Amino acid sequence: MTIDLAKVEATLLAAADAAAGKTLPLFRTNLGVDNKLAAGFDPVTEADRSAETAIRAVIGENFPDHAIIGEEWGNSGDSEYTWIIDPVDGTRAFITGVPVWGTLIGFAHNGVAIAGVMAQPFIGETFLASPGSATYHRNSLTRPLRTSGQTELAPSSVFTTTPSLFSSPELMAKWKALEAATQLQRFGLDCYGYALLAAGHADIVIEPFLNTYDIAALVPIIRQAGGAIACWDGSEPTGGGNVVAAATPALLEKALAVVNAA
Amino acid sequence: MTIDLAKVEATLLAAADAAAGKTLPLFRTNLGVDNKLAAGFDPVTEADRSAETAIRAVIGENFPDHAIIGEEWGNSGDSEYTWIIDPVDGTRAFITGVPVWGTLIGFAHNGVAIAGVMAQPFIGETFLASPGSATYHRNSLTRPLRTSGQTELAPSSVFTTTPSLFSSPELMAKWKALEAATQLQRFGLDCYGYALLAAGHADIVIEPFLNTYDIAALVPIIRQAGGAIACWDGSEPTGGGNVVAAATPALLEKALAVVNAA
Repeated sequence: MTIDLAKVEATLLAAADAAAGKTLPLFRTNLGVDNKLAAGFDPVTEADRSAETAIRAVIGENFPDHAIIGEEWGNSGDSEYTWIIDPVDGTRAFITGVPVWGTLIGFAHNGVAIAGVMAQPFIGETFLASPGSATYHRNSLTRPLRTSGQTELAPSSVFTTTPSLFSSPELMAKWKALEAATQLQRFGLDCYGYALLAAGHADIVIEPFLNTYDIAALVPIIRQAGGAIACWDGSEPTGGGNVVAAATPALLEKALAVVNAA
Repeated sequence: MTIDLAKVEATLLAAADAAAGKTLPLFRTNLGVDNKLAAGFDPVTEADRSAETAIRAVIGENFPDHAIIGEEWGNSGDSEYTWIIDPVDGTRAFITGVPVWGTLIGFAHNGVAIAGVMAQPFIGETFLASPGSATYHRNSLTRPLRTSGQTELAPSSVFTTTPSLFSSPELMAKWKALEAATQLQRFGLDCYGYALLAAGHADIVIEPFLNTYDIAALVPIIRQAGGAIACWDGSEPTGGGNVVAAATPALLEKALAVVNAA
């Protein structure tokens, strides 16, 4: 791998800033909300589309030969390096004014995310990782990201976006088993839950049915902060799927054992 | 009623500021968490206790003859005027680093809250109401609070802190009925959900088993912003109970009809 990682980091931050220029003016306004699913409710906002366009422009200027996967505008390019974008992760949070949505940009080499950013521009927080580094930024504050170090299930706090994600009896049994094994559960966080895990404030995040753009940016943030993340079958989660993240490899192993036994 | 409302507003803001001086230094630190219930998990933090002490001191300086009800330190005084305090509403959010907790201070006359503040100091937001006024404050920005004006259930967004609040089959049936009648549901918000309703970003909040200190501050914020709030039996909610808030009186009536028919 001969990639300029400083340039990757700078591109992640510049792209997140460009996205904020599109998302923030539309947050907490009565922007139009489209419905992109024939059935159900999958809101897509103008913020999503214009932010992804802005992110793609920044990446294209800096790394024109790299591949890009985005939630809104699909796949482009063919390279061992791929940028994986969710311009507004947590669209439902966005359209209801809750500042726990984030802009996610991951950078993967041969299918494994090695750098990434999660930005929450309304609060003004940025969670950034690249090989050997994970940092939290707000205003003039910069500090290393480090997970809680928790290794036991019983005192752990667990996040998931909503229990309705566990949409079959089999899946719900897995959630219920993890709920019973842990101390505290919180809902409603989308990507913000993974960022808080990296910062040491929660111990486990579990979600089924993730797409690659929901999780790729968060994989290096969790790993570089000392955490561990995998699909429920133990495989690499950069591509999405049913995912668990935990504060330590030991805790991940215990969480996976509970989920897979249920 | 011969009360100096400007002084009440100033006291609400000064007390919220005093609380922030106690809560913010402890937010996202590894503060000790006590367990005040023999069974279950009801975390009380040093932030709760010291913030309520600070709030009581400010009220006592300005209105020494008024009564005070607080979550942590109980009831004091006897007056037609009562200050009702939850120093950290959303303690679980607080201890997991999620900035949707708030400091709640309500001011009631003969059992009905007529002024109140909800402050989220990490984000830097304050929601303030007194007779004839409801305002949002962040940094140099001040603007009126106004609900969405929504009158129909079908396009409404609904917040509740967690579905597990609906802890019996009868209660869960009520939640499921409201879920089925509305477009979008979000969990995990505590007092922040009511504040977003007042600001026009969500349409309904429903929660059972509230204490007076969970809701009193929010009652005037919702009403002065154009919303409506009541217990499920239609009674005054300042004292707590099973509560629904809605963007308009018409929407409240429809939500109550669904809840009471289930």
